[in-house]
Amino acid sequence: MNAVNAHPKSGPIMTPGEVRKRIASGAHTGTTANLAPEYVQGNLVILPKALAYDFLSFCHANPKPCPVLGVSEPGDPAIPSLGEIDIRRDIPRYNVYRDGVLAEQVTDLDGLWRDDLVSFVLGCSFSFEEPLLAEGIPLRHISEGTIVSMYRTNIDTRPAGPFSGPMVVSMRPLSPAHAIRAVQITTRFPSVHGAPVHLAEPGLLGIKDIEKPDWGDPPGMRPGEIPVFWACGVTPQAAIEQARPEICITHTPGHMLITDLLNRHLAIL
Amino acid sequence: MNAVNAHPKSGPIMTPGEVRKRIASGAHTGTTANLAPEYVQGNLVILPKALAYDFLSFCHANPKPCPVLGVSEPGDPAIPSLGEIDIRRDIPRYNVYRDGVLAEQVTDLDGLWRDDLVSFVLGCSFSFEEPLLAEGIPLRHISEGTIVSMYRTNIDTRPAGPFSGPMVVSMRPLSPAHAIRAVQITTRFPSVHGAPVHLAEPGLLGIKDIEKPDWGDPPGMRPGEIPVFWACGVTPQAAIEQARPEICITHTPGHMLITDLLNRHLAIL
Repeated sequence: MNAVNAHPKSGPIMTPGEVRKRIASGAHTGTTANLAPEYVQGNLVILPKALAYDFLSFCHANPKPCPVLGVSEPGDPAIPSLGEIDIRRDIPRYNVYRDGVLAEQVTDLDGLWRDDLVSFVLGCSFSFEEPLLAEGIPLRHISEGTIVSMYRTNIDTRPAGPFSGPMVVSMRPLSPAHAIRAVQITTRFPSVHGAPVHLAEPGLLGIKDIEKPDWGDPPGMRPGEIPVFWACGVTPQAAIEQARPEICITHTPGHMLITDLLNRHLAIL
Repeated sequence: MNAVNAHPKSGPIMTPGEVRKRIASGAHTGTTANLAPEYVQGNLVILPKALAYDFLSFCHANPKPCPVLGVSEPGDPAIPSLGEIDIRRDIPRYNVYRDGVLAEQVTDLDGLWRDDLVSFVLGCSFSFEEPLLAEGIPLRHISEGTIVSMYRTNIDTRPAGPFSGPMVVSMRPLSPAHAIRAVQITTRFPSVHGAPVHLAEPGLLGIKDIEKPDWGDPPGMRPGEIPVFWACGVTPQAAIEQARPEICITHTPGHMLITDLLNRHLAIL
């Protein structure tokens, strides 16, 4: 790696493959925000093959919170459809869950890999936030450097095998005109959560206090804004915690898989 | 005309041309609701040629409330792009305004036609309500047989010549999920008002009491519903009243021009 790339923001923009190499080498263990702009970043879920069918069925039954971008062969750390990837090293930080409980965080899977592990990469809201920002729609959590507000809802996912639980939503405060435009824009991106699932009236989702999210930071709603809710990638994590698999490995939140796909290529029109 | 068509609902479905002939003959002078289903019905505005450029500019500057479907040559009662039309007789009932004030209602323009009159046909929400209903989105004013609620807003139109004034909106109460779907569906129909201009928070439009519309019937909002607002064809009527042209002829509300265009052909995708 070139020295000018030691801090990614100060150097020339790297390709997704260059960023992954840097991560695999251990040179970058932080979040992937602002790395390889315009490229799709994905949520990672690794499960034993014995649970793979049930989990893929769960994703298929709940495509808005669990949009599948790519899957691996059992035991194979490659995911060719998303780039030249070694899933054991190409993510800056991993969460390792045992029996549904976070057991450790690691920066590679060299000591944990097994021949029966299957990788799932799921779409993430980063991909639809790029076109929203490009349209001039301000996103508070980005401008203020906070974590988007997320809430458990009273909407049940459709269960599959041991996977079930509530849909989790992320929320962005928008003016009504921006909310309408955001519906139009995110509709074009069904593989990264797509259109909102709800807007206004948080009580209808069972949310009692919009300023007290279950995950992330308080939104700081302002007069003239309505809450706009999208299905969230935390939904499968909650379902996995409930299913208590003997082992499950995910990315650490914010430390995503950077793929070779361009966000704009996910648009269906 | 065939006797079985005396009441249009009881006979075979008529083509748009057959309905227009029936109207031109004086056999039908009522509203055009439910006539020639699936076909585009339009709002009519007739003005002297001296005002035609300003009015067309006003429509062009305000395409959401004033979407132009067709225009005529000065003095020519035909509008070939919309069908084989004689605009002097093919509408069941006309409002005649003199100096911006409603002077009379007539069922044809035989005594009023002039060589300098120009006809404008503007899109109407009937065309987007058909696909909303087809999607299973209930529309209260239709199921209850009332007139949709309309409101003057604090959004100014962009003026052109003597035409100016507030944007008028129509409002339909919907569940949040139906509101999102309705944004998607009506986005496909930009020539008949397109996507909503606002939702939730009526106060942001300057609407003090949602149950007291400026035109139409009270909406009867129910728990779990939000108001969804579309730009409305009453907007140009309000602008015309303000402009006080020496003569202006419109359709009588609900008594529309039935065209040969199919609603579904207005969809841009």
